[in-house]
Amino acid sequence: MNVVSPLPAQTPAQTGGKMVNAFDPNSLDHLDPALRHAIERRSRLLGPAYRLFYQEPVEVCRGQGTRLWDSQGREYLDAYNNVVSVGHCHPHVVEAVHRQMSTLCTHTRYIQEGILSYAEAMLPSFGGRIGAEGHMMFTCTGSEANDLALRIAKHHTRRRGIIVTEEAYHGNSELTAGFSPSLGENAPLGTWVRRIPAPDSYRHDPATLGRMMAEAITREAHLLKRHGDGLAAFVADSLFSSDGVYATPEVLKPVIEAVHAAGGLFIADEVQSGFGRSGEAFWGFQRHGIDPDIISMGKPMGNGFPVAAIAVAPEVVASFGRDMRYFNTFGGNGVAMAAANATREVLIGEGLQENACHIGAVLREGIAAMAKTHDSIGDVRGAGLYIGVEMVSDRAAKTPDATKAATIVNEMRKRRVLISATGPSANVLKIRPPLVFSQADADWLLDTLEEVLAL
Amino acid sequence: MNVVSPLPAQTPAQTGGKMVNAFDPNSLDHLDPALRHAIERRSRLLGPAYRLFYQEPVEVCRGQGTRLWDSQGREYLDAYNNVVSVGHCHPHVVEAVHRQMSTLCTHTRYIQEGILSYAEAMLPSFGGRIGAEGHMMFTCTGSEANDLALRIAKHHTRRRGIIVTEEAYHGNSELTAGFSPSLGENAPLGTWVRRIPAPDSYRHDPATLGRMMAEAITREAHLLKRHGDGLAAFVADSLFSSDGVYATPEVLKPVIEAVHAAGGLFIADEVQSGFGRSGEAFWGFQRHGIDPDIISMGKPMGNGFPVAAIAVAPEVVASFGRDMRYFNTFGGNGVAMAAANATREVLIGEGLQENACHIGAVLREGIAAMAKTHDSIGDVRGAGLYIGVEMVSDRAAKTPDATKAATIVNEMRKRRVLISATGPSANVLKIRPPLVFSQADADWLLDTLEEVLAL
Repeated sequence: MNVVSPLPAQTPAQTGGKMVNAFDPNSLDHLDPALRHAIERRSRLLGPAYRLFYQEPVEVCRGQGTRLWDSQGREYLDAYNNVVSVGHCHPHVVEAVHRQMSTLCTHTRYIQEGILSYAEAMLPSFGGRIGAEGHMMFTCTGSEANDLALRIAKHHTRRRGIIVTEEAYHGNSELTAGFSPSLGENAPLGTWVRRIPAPDSYRHDPATLGRMMAEAITREAHLLKRHGDGLAAFVADSLFSSDGVYATPEVLKPVIEAVHAAGGLFIADEVQSGFGRSGEAFWGFQRHGIDPDIISMGKPMGNGFPVAAIAVAPEVVASFGRDMRYFNTFGGNGVAMAAANATREVLIGEGLQENACHIGAVLREGIAAMAKTHDSIGDVRGAGLYIGVEMVSDRAAKTPDATKAATIVNEMRKRRVLISATGPSANVLKIRPPLVFSQADADWLLDTLEEVLAL
Repeated sequence: MNVVSPLPAQTPAQTGGKMVNAFDPNSLDHLDPALRHAIERRSRLLGPAYRLFYQEPVEVCRGQGTRLWDSQGREYLDAYNNVVSVGHCHPHVVEAVHRQMSTLCTHTRYIQEGILSYAEAMLPSFGGRIGAEGHMMFTCTGSEANDLALRIAKHHTRRRGIIVTEEAYHGNSELTAGFSPSLGENAPLGTWVRRIPAPDSYRHDPATLGRMMAEAITREAHLLKRHGDGLAAFVADSLFSSDGVYATPEVLKPVIEAVHAAGGLFIADEVQSGFGRSGEAFWGFQRHGIDPDIISMGKPMGNGFPVAAIAVAPEVVASFGRDMRYFNTFGGNGVAMAAANATREVLIGEGLQENACHIGAVLREGIAAMAKTHDSIGDVRGAGLYIGVEMVSDRAAKTPDATKAATIVNEMRKRRVLISATGPSANVLKIRPPLVFSQADADWLLDTLEEVLAL
């Protein structure tokens, strides 16, 4: 047997309550008085746990398509927000929500058509066992979806062990925060949570990544058993967003085999990578050619309306359904389903997965071209409209450069192009616009990035 | 020291995945073919964990004020739904949501006015320390609010112990389900969760209830310490909804003292009892004359739009805010805040707390009058428009009669008046209509109940 050495741990930049691209509340002095006042008022009313983006936070007042406007009427290009996947304030979604809000907004203990027609339309999209005979269950947030997925997985397997990637993010409930190491050193990981490296295609041969992760799964699952429990589930975002955006296809194929061999379930967290975002497939896990046991989804599902869900193979939820029950007051309510149905119609009707594929390639090629003259760009990667650009101080050593990434993000923001940064070393530009991003939007973004790189 | 004996445990009717007033999927035969088809389709699409209300489930299609209409155009009186507190499809809320959905729907990492003006308007309503200098934090559901409240309480106290009442319900996340014993025997309670009796004013002298609960707190907190941890928080719904609806005022006063003496926090779960529901106060805890450390709220907050929150004393969230951070993608988004602001305006503008007080008294007095001729009514209790009617088979022995309660609920439903049942013995009628319930609505409900009691 070949032994593949584990990936080296990177120094986490996100210690304590710190966050990549967060405004530092100790640097209020450089801001204009109105903005300063708003931030102080916010801090007084919302307390110390909230964070704002950028050295100079943005006050947003209006949105349309890929554009945002601030309180001064200044226009911004939104190259960050994946929730409003079909564009800010898409009229088809706005109209559907209004129609249903005016008609009925109530819960799932009555029969309603919207939730049934939505599940009926979506289930085939998952393919595999879930596509053939799976069920959908509705929550309000991706955190709730992942929390429910794990409750079901633990009940089904009668085990507690959870494996995630090194800098994963899967939610803000106690359970999901407990397997979201990207929340930082002070957010406690759960007792039965173990981590494996993300598939870092920049520092390792992409052909070895799947095997490396699968071997790590086997090792950690064995340790979970050795400590008296076992593997309930491995959870992965197939674009590894908070790990730094990695998009090598097929990597998860050996991984799901190792997970199943250890008796665990594979949970595909599609909150970031689903609904056409990756361009190449409607669901991110489909780029890996796998058949997950549970699929969670959220963010873009209702284009901003709070709606999320899981899809689950019937044998996995059978005992949970028999022994317990699930009710979520707002989850699956009529208006949430109207928002989700309308968003789905726009995604398909406007060919947004195809647009993500096309414009994503335009952006990656444009940035790759800049890399020829800008040594600070170490790697350009991603799929569809989820793009990571790794900034480095030394190309040969691939040394992460968080300062450079932060400078670019903030200089772009000054020029009213909104992106962010991610990754364990906070040095990966995160470009993740609404899927309606046009060629003209891409040109605006690329021109601005070129200008900022030249500073 | 006086020793008050603990309340006797009642036999839980809600074992397994069973639920009070749930449709039994094994009894499809008596239903008409269209309804049967809808239920079978629902079961195939949504799986086994969902439950429907009533022996004959209702398919709802439209709502207005206190009325619902089904797919056949039949009109129902809604005396159950507390979410649509200002009435189904209230135009002021519908309009506010539409306006904001058409303008901008995005998250809290940008500055936005709606969330600030809402927190500014609400904070004084809590009174005490939170009213004076507290903060609000926004989630999408009551479950998320209680989950966050406990994460903060555990971080602040550096302890894990949680005390709740015998048949409490506080949420559906793993953490909150772990302190929601009303979910039934198969939903595991957390390792550090302990229970005390609810203030059963029907079976005990109301004057002794507070002391009895306080002594139980002291005892259980000591045991939590004895087992190696200690009390992080006591969580209570001040109307004890799932325990069977108990509304004796001032009961929680000695309780909060015992909680604080044990070094724990008092979390007021206002998801059911807040926003004027109790008639006598805007917040349920205010009927008890106490100053909680954290307050959670949800259900009626946006009249059906998914929005929930906590309000917290600054010293309690200080370390959480310093060490960690909180972000909820949809929590506190512009549209959620528009819904919450509009709902608040209607609640106050239409005097709905006062209406709850007045019509609630009308209903209780009307039912108490029926009790003179109907021995099956053991007790009529509640506050404002949260009313519990305990059905018994033997008045002297106060023997719970779940069958009678189920019959009444289903006979009312046949006559198109929607109520439900609750309590550990499933024998308490739960009457909890929108706060816009009118005198005419009350007459309709009372006339129907009289008719059904005479069967």
